[in-house]
Amino acid sequence: MEERNNKPIVKLISKPKDMLRTVYTACRTCYSADTPINIYENSTDEEKMLKLIKNVVASGHHSTIEHIQVSFAISNVSRACTHQLVRHRLMSFSQKSQRYVQEKGQFDFIIPPTIDKNPELKEKFISFMGEISSKYQEFVDAGIPAEDARFVLPNATSSSLVASLNLRELIHLAQLRLCTRAQYEIRMMVKAMCDEITKEEPWLKEYLVPKCEFNGFCDEHKSCGRKITKSELFEKAGI
Amino acid sequence: MEERNNKPIVKLISKPKDMLRTVYTACRTCYSADTPINIYENSTDEEKMLKLIKNVVASGHHSTIEHIQVSFAISNVSRACTHQLVRHRLMSFSQKSQRYVQEKGQFDFIIPPTIDKNPELKEKFISFMGEISSKYQEFVDAGIPAEDARFVLPNATSSSLVASLNLRELIHLAQLRLCTRAQYEIRMMVKAMCDEITKEEPWLKEYLVPKCEFNGFCDEHKSCGRKITKSELFEKAGI
Amino acid sequence: MEERNNKPIVKLISKPKDMLRTVYTACRTCYSADTPINIYENSTDEEKMLKLIKNVVASGHHSTIEHIQVSFAISNVSRACTHQLVRHRLMSFSQKSQRYVQEKGQFDFIIPPTIDKNPELKEKFISFMGEISSKYQEFVDAGIPAEDARFVLPNATSSSLVASLNLRELIHLAQLRLCTRAQYEIRMMVKAMCDEITKEEPWLKEYLVPKCEFNGFCDEHKSCGRKITKSELFEKAGI
Amino acid sequence: MEERNNKPIVKLISKPKDMLRTVYTACRTCYSADTPINIYENSTDEEKMLKLIKNVVASGHHSTIEHIQVSFAISNVSRACTHQLVRHRLMSFSQKSQRYVQEKGQFDFIIPPTIDKNPELKEKFISFMGEISSKYQEFVDAGIPAEDARFVLPNATSSSLVASLNLRELIHLAQLRLCTRAQYEIRMMVKAMCDEITKEEPWLKEYLVPKCEFNGFCDEHKSCGRKITKSELFEKAGI
Repeated sequence: MEERNNKPIVKLISKPKDMLRTVYTACRTCYSADTPINIYENSTDEEKMLKLIKNVVASGHHSTIEHIQVSFAISNVSRACTHQLVRHRLMSFSQKSQRYVQEKGQFDFIIPPTIDKNPELKEKFISFMGEISSKYQEFVDAGIPAEDARFVLPNATSSSLVASLNLRELIHLAQLRLCTRAQYEIRMMVKAMCDEITKEEPWLKEYLVPKCEFNGFCDEHKSCGRKITKSELFEKAGI
Repeated sequence: MEERNNKPIVKLISKPKDMLRTVYTACRTCYSADTPINIYENSTDEEKMLKLIKNVVASGHHSTIEHIQVSFAISNVSRACTHQLVRHRLMSFSQKSQRYVQEKGQFDFIIPPTIDKNPELKEKFISFMGEISSKYQEFVDAGIPAEDARFVLPNATSSSLVASLNLRELIHLAQLRLCTRAQYEIRMMVKAMCDEITKEEPWLKEYLVPKCEFNGFCDEHKSCGRKITKSELFEKAGI
Repeated sequence: MEERNNKPIVKLISKPKDMLRTVYTACRTCYSADTPINIYENSTDEEKMLKLIKNVVASGHHSTIEHIQVSFAISNVSRACTHQLVRHRLMSFSQKSQRYVQEKGQFDFIIPPTIDKNPELKEKFISFMGEISSKYQEFVDAGIPAEDARFVLPNATSSSLVASLNLRELIHLAQLRLCTRAQYEIRMMVKAMCDEITKEEPWLKEYLVPKCEFNGFCDEHKSCGRKITKSELFEKAGI
Repeated sequence: MEERNNKPIVKLISKPKDMLRTVYTACRTCYSADTPINIYENSTDEEKMLKLIKNVVASGHHSTIEHIQVSFAISNVSRACTHQLVRHRLMSFSQKSQRYVQEKGQFDFIIPPTIDKNPELKEKFISFMGEISSKYQEFVDAGIPAEDARFVLPNATSSSLVASLNLRELIHLAQLRLCTRAQYEIRMMVKAMCDEITKEEPWLKEYLVPKCEFNGFCDEHKSCGRKITKSELFEKAGI
């Protein structure tokens, strides 16, 4: 049986040119007597722009970073993962429809790593995906429409989507979903999104981190130990 | 084998008291020199209130009907259906987690009506749900965590959620999802939501209809014939 | 000259009955094999409900508290204040229109406290409001429509609105706008909103506080000193 | 007295490259067995892409056009106008602050055309803006902070902002605010936004029109007569 790639495939397909200058112009406009057009046209000092943005983000004035939006083409992720992702209501999604797109032959699927690393369980999993595929075909062949036959398709079924979000939501997504407590697959997917964008916009690296890195402490109920917990922090400070 | 109920179970668990008066106060506040508190306290003429709301909704000034929000407890719906529902990004959802809630014994599932009405296919479907359940248990028994074992669970798996939305979004939801083109299950579920609320607030009946009823014509690509299509309308009018 | 009341007038006009039980049902639904209807109907232990909600809010799982929405009738606030308030994009607003509602006689206005406490400046301010009122009337009398005559009306002009928001946004609003750095008028208005709701739902008191109270530290650039700053906290903890 | 320019100044400062291809990829992903990356990389036939997008927009599947966002630098618009604009809650705004930016000398202002075209009223208006400016300075000189002195500044005061929105919201904005019933200033501003974007993306022209052009009829209470009203349409069709 062919080796499967269980990793999300993520590609940045759209971003505005001059992201830094757009965000800088937005930040400056709030506090300047100058017009945003002048600010935009006269902004060239990258270091100065980065410094202002850092201050503005640190101060929590996050509406200023909504002005840039990026789009990702994503495939090879399970429907379990996309059901989590689409709960981010400030994002825009266009996802492959199981109502309108009928599966032909064996549908693509994702194997969770806890199963993937155990040869016996893995074989059982793959073979069961084959059984589900046959059952799906049986229903389709009996005249059941794709939108109903899909009731047998599992959470493991692979899906594709285009997902767009602004920088504020991307940072929020990274802070939540890069956390060790997030499920492994969405963590891999969001990591891949962050890698794609920081390849082209390296200045974003410091913002696209788990929330504990951003805050300096962990506020999860069960911490993974990467950072001091909030209660430990206050204890250490004697407060 | 026990007979299954394939219908969504929907119950209105929360609504503001005095919905009509709240919406009326919002509508009047925009066009009145009087304060909203006075308007609220002096509004008792139900007929007058209904008439103003009707005009305001007809004119498209829909932000005024956002002031009331209702909540539904929903169960016995498939994950296929909830994956559609949660795409309504202006709603609030709290859904039973397949990561944290492990299925014990046979999981509950929904049978699509095209399968349900065919005894042979129905038996095949139910029996396959049994196989999936066994496979899920096998993985759980082998030490796989619920969040990974669930990769074999199908779209048919039953789910539960609390869903809240304001009146503007409820009307939008009804207009889209009561349309014959919507999938049967979400149509039944949204119909049940509308029935729940109109039992207590009958004045909402005229708003909670498919979009063709509201617009007077159908703008779908493939019409079910319930109403004249938009192009037929213009043709008939000689435009 | 008649003494003016410079305080926002705020009245809670709508809230769901059984707020606590609705939020509790939403929280439990995520982690329970039981249906939300059963959870709702069997929940009576107030202490137990409060404890779960506290844990859920502390853990950052804030979508669960979106299920309750409240509405306020607000008057006697300046247009400066409402221009700030309407920037909260997750709220719903119906505001008195200066296009459609013509001011008759002296328009109502708000005097900022820095001016109000200085008798000389206060007199100058009130007298200038009279001049603006005359100028507005001159333009109206010359046939200029209200929507254009209002170009002379000042930020001080009093406005009225109905504002609705869910509990998640209300907590967010309180955390930002009860902060000493917020402008005095919006701080008073939000304080009055919180007082209105906690009168009826006292369990909300611990959530409707400035962010420093909630977080345990201040993350503002310029702190008012009420709480230890974030950098001081880390310094004290030796990190 | 120097001649004033009363027109909004609008410049498109940010858009994604390859807008058409991004939207097309999103539309295709929903109905295709192919991955979005392949779709994106193999899409070059502009005519085919335009045709699909037209069908998708006509059918009301508008989430697909959220994937592109554009940003405008806007200045020379009144605070009356921006108070209307910021009510579009799906947009992102960064606006010049009257709390933090103190006006020096005569503040910039906008003259409504009904006043502008009447020399006598115009002179009265300009001269009164001078009086307001003096009064503002008096308060500032007396030690009143800018955030309180601004209580005398009028709706006519000129403002600047960066505004970003996705294509779905831009079409919605155009449909509402290009309508003859919208106030002249926001109509000019939105027209200028549409002109800026269609200069570079001419395929958007057919979407950025008043709602009556898009729908084929007028649904306003008081029609300007540009298009047949909805009730006339049904009457003519004999329905």
